Amino acid sequence: MLLVVVLAGFWIAAAAAQPAPTSAGPADPKLVEDLVAASRILADQGLLDGWGHVSVRHNRDPNRYLMSRGLSADLVTEKDILEFDLDSRPVDTRGLPMSALFTERYIHGEIYKMRPDVMAVVHTHAPSLIPFGVTKVPLKPMYHRSAFISFGIPVFEIRDRAGMTDMLIRNPTLGHDLAEGLGNHPAALMRGHGAVVTGPSLPRVVGRTIFLALNATMQAQAMSMGAPVTYMDPEEARKIEEREGHGLARTWEGWKRKVMGKR
Amino acid sequence: MLLVVVLAGFWIAAAAAQPAPTSAGPADPKLVEDLVAASRILADQGLLDGWGHVSVRHNRDPNRYLMSRGLSADLVTEKDILEFDLDSRPVDTRGLPMSALFTERYIHGEIYKMRPDVMAVVHTHAPSLIPFGVTKVPLKPMYHRSAFISFGIPVFEIRDRAGMTDMLIRNPTLGHDLAEGLGNHPAALMRGHGAVVTGPSLPRVVGRTIFLALNATMQAQAMSMGAPVTYMDPEEARKIEEREGHGLARTWEGWKRKVMGKR
Amino acid sequence: MLLVVVLAGFWIAAAAAQPAPTSAGPADPKLVEDLVAASRILADQGLLDGWGHVSVRHNRDPNRYLMSRGLSADLVTEKDILEFDLDSRPVDTRGLPMSALFTERYIHGEIYKMRPDVMAVVHTHAPSLIPFGVTKVPLKPMYHRSAFISFGIPVFEIRDRAGMTDMLIRNPTLGHDLAEGLGNHPAALMRGHGAVVTGPSLPRVVGRTIFLALNATMQAQAMSMGAPVTYMDPEEARKIEEREGHGLARTWEGWKRKVMGKR
Amino acid sequence: MLLVVVLAGFWIAAAAAQPAPTSAGPADPKLVEDLVAASRILADQGLLDGWGHVSVRHNRDPNRYLMSRGLSADLVTEKDILEFDLDSRPVDTRGLPMSALFTERYIHGEIYKMRPDVMAVVHTHAPSLIPFGVTKVPLKPMYHRSAFISFGIPVFEIRDRAGMTDMLIRNPTLGHDLAEGLGNHPAALMRGHGAVVTGPSLPRVVGRTIFLALNATMQAQAMSMGAPVTYMDPEEARKIEEREGHGLARTWEGWKRKVMGKR
Repeated sequence: MLLVVVLAGFWIAAAAAQPAPTSAGPADPKLVEDLVAASRILADQGLLDGWGHVSVRHNRDPNRYLMSRGLSADLVTEKDILEFDLDSRPVDTRGLPMSALFTERYIHGEIYKMRPDVMAVVHTHAPSLIPFGVTKVPLKPMYHRSAFISFGIPVFEIRDRAGMTDMLIRNPTLGHDLAEGLGNHPAALMRGHGAVVTGPSLPRVVGRTIFLALNATMQAQAMSMGAPVTYMDPEEARKIEEREGHGLARTWEGWKRKVMGKR
Repeated sequence: MLLVVVLAGFWIAAAAAQPAPTSAGPADPKLVEDLVAASRILADQGLLDGWGHVSVRHNRDPNRYLMSRGLSADLVTEKDILEFDLDSRPVDTRGLPMSALFTERYIHGEIYKMRPDVMAVVHTHAPSLIPFGVTKVPLKPMYHRSAFISFGIPVFEIRDRAGMTDMLIRNPTLGHDLAEGLGNHPAALMRGHGAVVTGPSLPRVVGRTIFLALNATMQAQAMSMGAPVTYMDPEEARKIEEREGHGLARTWEGWKRKVMGKR
Repeated sequence: MLLVVVLAGFWIAAAAAQPAPTSAGPADPKLVEDLVAASRILADQGLLDGWGHVSVRHNRDPNRYLMSRGLSADLVTEKDILEFDLDSRPVDTRGLPMSALFTERYIHGEIYKMRPDVMAVVHTHAPSLIPFGVTKVPLKPMYHRSAFISFGIPVFEIRDRAGMTDMLIRNPTLGHDLAEGLGNHPAALMRGHGAVVTGPSLPRVVGRTIFLALNATMQAQAMSMGAPVTYMDPEEARKIEEREGHGLARTWEGWKRKVMGKR
Repeated sequence: MLLVVVLAGFWIAAAAAQPAPTSAGPADPKLVEDLVAASRILADQGLLDGWGHVSVRHNRDPNRYLMSRGLSADLVTEKDILEFDLDSRPVDTRGLPMSALFTERYIHGEIYKMRPDVMAVVHTHAPSLIPFGVTKVPLKPMYHRSAFISFGIPVFEIRDRAGMTDMLIRNPTLGHDLAEGLGNHPAALMRGHGAVVTGPSLPRVVGRTIFLALNATMQAQAMSMGAPVTYMDPEEARKIEEREGHGLARTWEGWKRKVMGKR
C-alpha cells in the first residue's frame, strides 16, 4: 500500500510538471447542452449530489472528455464544462486552481481509456444502491428498463486493491483499478461509496443510472416479500438491450425540458 | 414463436398497405381536455413516465379511441391527441412518422375490442406494482378506495404466450394476448414491466391506477408486520364499487386543477 | 342490519322534512381562516385527499360546527366553509345540493355530541395508518410528539356494528357507532379506511394527525429491526401531554405560512 | 428526581434575577448568513421542523453562541438571530418574552461549555434516527460521507438521569446530562426524541446531520437484506475524517443557493 501511495505521489508530481494537453477544439454545443442537462436531470432525481458527476467523450477526439468543474450537479451550466485528456489533466482550467476540479475525475478518464465503446460515464451516490454494495447481494434485473443489469454489476472493493484508504478514487492508479473492476460491464457498485455507470451516449447513461437505482429499490422490496422472484431471462435482456434507446429520445426530451427551464 | 413473429410482420406489412381508417369526427373538447389532464395527473403522481400512456374511447364511435402521440406524460397537450381505430392504426398522423407513435398502443386497441364496457385504459410502470408482478404475490384489497382489486388482478406472463421477447406489447397479437390475460378483470399486472388498468371513464381509470399502486405499497407494509391482515370482504367490495365514482368528481377536479395550471 | 338501514333511511327522510337548523351567527374570522389553513396543511403533508376533511366547533355555540363543502382539501377557501348542527344538517347550503356536502360529515357531528371536550376533528386516509388498522397491531407511542398515543388508539371495525357495508360513515347511526368506538381516546383507526383524530383546538388536531401518521411510519420501521423497542412510559406521555401545545403555536405559524401563500 | 426539579427551579429563579450577560459585539455577517442558511437547508431536507434548531459559536467570543428565536426552521432570517452566553441566557431578547426562545437551548450552551472543539450544534428530530434510538440498535458507518459514525453515536436515555420527564432538555441540568452523555462523540441519539449533532463548523454540522440520517435509512435497508454487512473500517473512517470538509464547500454552496433564493 505504501508503494501505491508513493507511486501515486510521484505520478502527480510528474503530471504537474508536464505541459497542459492540447484541445480537440470546441465541442458540439448540442453535446455540451446535453451534458449540462444530464447533470441537472440526475440531480433532480436525487441521483447526483455535490460530489457526483457525469462526463461525455469529446465529439472531435476520443482521447478527450468533457466534464464540469467541481460544482453541485444542479448548478452546472455550459460555462462550467472543461475539457480533459484521458489522464484526466485539464486542457485549460480557465484560471481555476486544481483544487476546483473534481478529485475523482480519474474515474472517467481511466474508463474511457480502457473502454472505447463507452461514450458517457456517471459517478453516483444513489442511496438505494449502497445497501447492495455493502452486502454484496447481487443486483438482478427485474424491470424491463433495467435489462442491462443482466450483463452483470460487479462490486468494486477498494480494500482489495489499495487496503485502507479514504475510499475516494483520487489518482490514476485507483481509477485504473476501478476500470479493471468494471471490466466490460455496464456499471459497477463501489462498496460503501456509490456506483459508476457507463453508456454509449448521455441519454443512455442517464437512463441506466435512473433504472439501476430504481431496480435496487424494487428488488429489495420483492426480496422481502417471501416468495420466489422471477428475474429477467438473459435472452429477454438481450432482446431489450438490442432495442434499448428506442423511445428513449422521447423520455430524454421530457427529463430535459423539466430541468432546463429552471436556470 | 417464430410463427408469431412472422405473422406479426405480415400483419404490419398488410396494415401499412391499407388506407388510413376514417375519422369518427371531432371528439368532445371536454373529453380531450380530460385525457390531457389524466396524462398529467398520473405523471404528477409518479405513475406515468416517458413510456406510459392513457387513452379514452371516442365519444362518437366505439370503434375509435384517442391517445397522445409518443410523448412524456407530463408534456401532453390537446394538440398531441390522435385518433386510432381498434387495430391501433392512426386516422391521421398529421405528418408524424409511425415511429413517433407509442409502440405499445396495441394494448389499448385490443382491450377496447374485447371489452365493450371499458371506456378508458392506462398503461403504467408504477414502481410499487413491479414487486407483486415478479413474485406473483396476489394483490388483495385492503383499502376502501382499492375495492375493485377484489374482482381479481391477474399477472400477465408474456413468456407463456410468446416465449422470449423484448417484453413490449409491440403488435396486435401480443395486444390480443394481453387482453385475453386481462379477461373481465379491472386490471392486470405485466411481469417485470408494469400494469394495465381499465375503467368506465377517465376519472375512474385514473383513480384505479392511483389506488392500485397505493394498495400495493400498503399491502407490502402490512404483510411485513407479522400479524394476520383483514382484507376487504367481497361483499364490502361489491357495495363500494356500486357507488364508486360517487365523490370522485370532486377529487378529479382537485387533481386536475393542480396539473392544468402548470402548462 | 336491515333494521339499521331502514331506520337510517327513515331518519334521512325525516331530516329532509325538518326545517334547516338556525345559525349561531358569524364565526370568528380567525377560526375560519385557521380551518382553511388546517385543511391545506394536512393536504400539503399528504394526509388529506379529496375525501378527507377537518372541522371545528363553532366559537359561538357548542351545538354547531364548521366544515367545508365537499372539496379536495387543498382547494378549500373561506367561502367554502358551511355551518352544521350536531345532527350534521347544514344551516344554509347556499344553493348547493345535499350531494355537494361530504357524505361522511356525521363523523364530526356525532363526535361533537358525545365529546364536549373535543373542539376539532380530522378524518384522514393517511397511508401509514392503514396497515395498523388491518393488522390490529397496536400503535404505541415512540416519539415525544406522539405521546397522546399512550391514551390508546382503538381500531373501529365497522363489520362489528353494521355487517357488510360500503365502509363509509354515511348516516348518523354509523357516526354514533364510530363515536362510541372512539370513546374517550384521542383518535381511532378505521379498518381498511383511515382514522379519526380529535383535539382541543385546530393546531392540536393537526399536530396529532401529523404525529399519529409519523409514529406509524417509525414504529413499523422499529418493529422490523429485530430488537426490543422502548416505548414511551405512560408517565412520560402524561407529562408531555400536560404541556403539549406549548411551542405548537410557533410550528403552526410555520405550517400555515407555507400553505396560505399558495392561494 | 425531586431534588433535581427543585434545584432546576432554583437555578431558573436565580438566573432571572441576574443581569443579562454582556454582548461579544456584532457577529461576522457571513457567519450569521450561514446560520440562517443552515437552518433553511436542514428544513428543506426534512431534518428540522418547528422544534429543531441549529446554533454556532460566536466568532468574537467562545463564551457566546448564536441561535434564532423560537421559529420554524424554514422561516429563520438574519433578524431572528440572538446571542446567548453558555448558560443559555440571551444577551438581548429585543423585547421578546422568554417564552419566545427555544426551551431546549440548553442543549447548545452546555455542549459548548464542555466541548471547546465544537463550533456548531444541531438538534434534530430526523425520522430515520428515531427507530435506532428506541431499539438501541447501534448506528454503524456504511457510507463514506458518514464516516464520523465510526467515532461512536451513543444513545442518551433521559430516564437514567432524571426518571420520568416530559423528555425535553428544559434546564441547564438536563443540558449538562446530555452533554455528558454525548462525551467526545460527534453526535448522540436521544431516545424517543431525536438527536444532537456537533461539528467544527456550520457546513460540517449540516453535512453530518444529513449523512447521519441518510446512513440510518440505508443501514436499516441493508440490515433487512439477510446478508452480512461490510461496515467501514475504523482506519478508513479515520482517513476520511482527516480530509472531511474537503469538497464540502462546493456542496454547501449548492445547498445554500437552493434555499436562500426562497426568501
